Amino acid sequence: MRLFPVPLLLVGVRLLAPAQEADTAGEAAARRLRDEGLTRLGAYEMLRELAQRAPHRLSGSTGADSAVALAQAWMHAREFSNVHLERVTVPHWVRGKVEKAFVSSAGRPRQPIAVCALGGSIATPPGGITAPVVEVRSFADLQSLGAEAGGKIIFYNRAMDPRLLNTFQAYEGAVDQRSRGAIEGAKAGAVAVLVRSMTLAIDGVPHTGAMGYMEGVRKIPAAAVSTRDAEMLSGLIARGARPRVTLVLSSKTLPDAPSANVVGEITGDEAPQEVVVIGGHIDAWDKGTGAHDDGAGCVQAIEALDLIRSLGLRPRKTIRAVMFMNEENGLRGGRAYPVDPLRGGERPVAMIESDAGGFAPRGFYVEADSTVRSRIARWQGLLDMAGAGRFILGRGAVDISPMVAKGVPGFSLDPENQRYFDYHHSDKDTPDKVNPRELELGAVAEALLAWLISEEGF
Amino acid sequence: MRLFPVPLLLVGVRLLAPAQEADTAGEAAARRLRDEGLTRLGAYEMLRELAQRAPHRLSGSTGADSAVALAQAWMHAREFSNVHLERVTVPHWVRGKVEKAFVSSAGRPRQPIAVCALGGSIATPPGGITAPVVEVRSFADLQSLGAEAGGKIIFYNRAMDPRLLNTFQAYEGAVDQRSRGAIEGAKAGAVAVLVRSMTLAIDGVPHTGAMGYMEGVRKIPAAAVSTRDAEMLSGLIARGARPRVTLVLSSKTLPDAPSANVVGEITGDEAPQEVVVIGGHIDAWDKGTGAHDDGAGCVQAIEALDLIRSLGLRPRKTIRAVMFMNEENGLRGGRAYPVDPLRGGERPVAMIESDAGGFAPRGFYVEADSTVRSRIARWQGLLDMAGAGRFILGRGAVDISPMVAKGVPGFSLDPENQRYFDYHHSDKDTPDKVNPRELELGAVAEALLAWLISEEGF
Repeated sequence: MRLFPVPLLLVGVRLLAPAQEADTAGEAAARRLRDEGLTRLGAYEMLRELAQRAPHRLSGSTGADSAVALAQAWMHAREFSNVHLERVTVPHWVRGKVEKAFVSSAGRPRQPIAVCALGGSIATPPGGITAPVVEVRSFADLQSLGAEAGGKIIFYNRAMDPRLLNTFQAYEGAVDQRSRGAIEGAKAGAVAVLVRSMTLAIDGVPHTGAMGYMEGVRKIPAAAVSTRDAEMLSGLIARGARPRVTLVLSSKTLPDAPSANVVGEITGDEAPQEVVVIGGHIDAWDKGTGAHDDGAGCVQAIEALDLIRSLGLRPRKTIRAVMFMNEENGLRGGRAYPVDPLRGGERPVAMIESDAGGFAPRGFYVEADSTVRSRIARWQGLLDMAGAGRFILGRGAVDISPMVAKGVPGFSLDPENQRYFDYHHSDKDTPDKVNPRELELGAVAEALLAWLISEEGF
Repeated sequence: MRLFPVPLLLVGVRLLAPAQEADTAGEAAARRLRDEGLTRLGAYEMLRELAQRAPHRLSGSTGADSAVALAQAWMHAREFSNVHLERVTVPHWVRGKVEKAFVSSAGRPRQPIAVCALGGSIATPPGGITAPVVEVRSFADLQSLGAEAGGKIIFYNRAMDPRLLNTFQAYEGAVDQRSRGAIEGAKAGAVAVLVRSMTLAIDGVPHTGAMGYMEGVRKIPAAAVSTRDAEMLSGLIARGARPRVTLVLSSKTLPDAPSANVVGEITGDEAPQEVVVIGGHIDAWDKGTGAHDDGAGCVQAIEALDLIRSLGLRPRKTIRAVMFMNEENGLRGGRAYPVDPLRGGERPVAMIESDAGGFAPRGFYVEADSTVRSRIARWQGLLDMAGAGRFILGRGAVDISPMVAKGVPGFSLDPENQRYFDYHHSDKDTPDKVNPRELELGAVAEALLAWLISEEGF
């Protein structure tokens, strides 16, 4: 491409929605935040450091401790106010050193398949579990098997629906296999479950994630299998090869461990007791380095505050960064935040979080009443200066949900999502999959939204 | 991220612009095109084949011939109508095997720097050109040097402006150094020019691209230098090290060569003489494999027609795919298209092109009168089903510009652009930088826009 688009006027959106009057103060803030962010690209520097110093930071791990210390150090170095830890007790699940699986079928050599324990799974016996495999695509399929499921390894192989534009919807449509698969499998008499990895990519990489057990239902081991091996295994079954799988997992759950949310802020000049939160979750699965999920959200929150502070912008309300602990397998940090005694004298104004990846932002998912929604529409043009002017009514990040449930308006950054599940919860979620400008634009959008809420209210 | 956004209602855009009445036929077509595209991901299969079979396809090369033959074979295999070549004569510049450069300064060992000839550059003498380096950031800087530029290598080191959200604007603000640098350098008495690569990334990869000479002005060699080496060289100069550079290039320009645009179509059922074009350019620089620039646009155009055809949609007007030859260094294909005798009996309705990368589409740049613009606003919701509902008034792809200059409405796909110049015209522009879903969504958006124009007109 040699010539260049010269945007003159939006048609469509802008022709239908006449341009708002220029808000001089808001525009100036938007421009300064964007210019500063895109020049220094500070979020990516932190992301790289997080990946180096705390690559694995699942709740309860020493990596999680390192991440907490690092986030606290970043906040101190950036001269945030009131930097402190908010103590929480978290689950402590450990993957274990051995996790592997093999497929065998008559007349073929034993073949390894790429698996990883799902988060929370019990171990197999040291020699593994070997059993015939039965493929299902739903719990209805499973129930229709009746007694046939007894003694088998249930292989859940319903793919994420590729036709959905929003990959989070495709995830939502498949993830019950991972979260409830072991429970339903055990009820049917199975000895273990294999779950097709939650990704739209076809490759050899397994994707972990949370799974659950139920009181009164036998616990059986649960592992994710790569999509490529899921296709292979499904092909074997379709050809009548009656494969058997050997699954070996050595994961275990240790006693709950002490941990913490990390909190720091820019204290409001006029109404310090009114608080706008920007959050991310500091824990991550122990695959890859949690770069998109949710290293991105953490460094964006800290960068957002630092952009405001370093530009000398003094917000009327308090703008606070919160690194929530234990989003992935317990939400203990998100649940502890609203009930911390420190919240007593405060008036929460808004909760902002980024937890959908460090891709180019398009806007925010908004959970708020119609009054707030009609008020924020005026900021669309300003947020478009960071590419993030699209508001969609809908649920978003989980850490903020306990506060949103209390009626506090919630804003979840909505980045481009086509590639998110290529990396999510896998060894592929590393900083080289994150573009420094796209990441920074998310920080700029959060900073600007927090600033506008602080200065103009709803 | 464990819970999931559930879009219920757009606020902002949608609250301000009340949702249009459902257009049943249009919605059905949009849904079918998207479902089929995202399921089969046909564009990426072609992109991979193009990169394997015709990785280097600069105008006049045997690779360009291979690409032309491949595109023609794809069109035949997909049963397009009226598949043919439209002959054009193209420039034939060849990089040559040797291109290298070294920096030397007092008391330091000679140090290699990463360079590549700019497209169109003459060679240096076989032993290279060695001269002191002078750094400038503008032609005004250069002129202020006066006689000091004589005998020097001019080093143009004005970076693309990182503060601009639209990276194409940042490119536009820097690319004069590449396109006119040798002319202005020669006028000032320089012996060669080095140009900072046109990218926002800081790395060791040089980016090529077109440069020009001027009748009556001495031709001097011109090369791009990686941004990392540009920074290093600038640092040496700033510290007073007075570096000298040795530049060796062996590029040459051969006589013009025969080549062709590749054309195929779905003939319109009701008004076959009315034509909607979807284009891409089949030539590419001889670095990387031209995956984003513009393999993406080519395979999207063919995939767009094939989606329409394979779904049994029968357009009223003719929908035509055109693979333009020689966009990068001559625009001969784009200029030949309007004057081909075959155009005589036709009525051109619209020109659509994708030439800004195979990233997730956001919408289209539109060049059309206000009547057309106000009519197309009704399609925004439908195009949003492929994520591409944002229309911006402005110039876009170059191949279609000769037709647009004649008054034909032009539509240039507008994908997310933050990463484009990381890869553009360099060894990094390979299919692994393209996501199959993002690429396909561009094809779906083009197919849908062409279909809507065909069925509903403006």
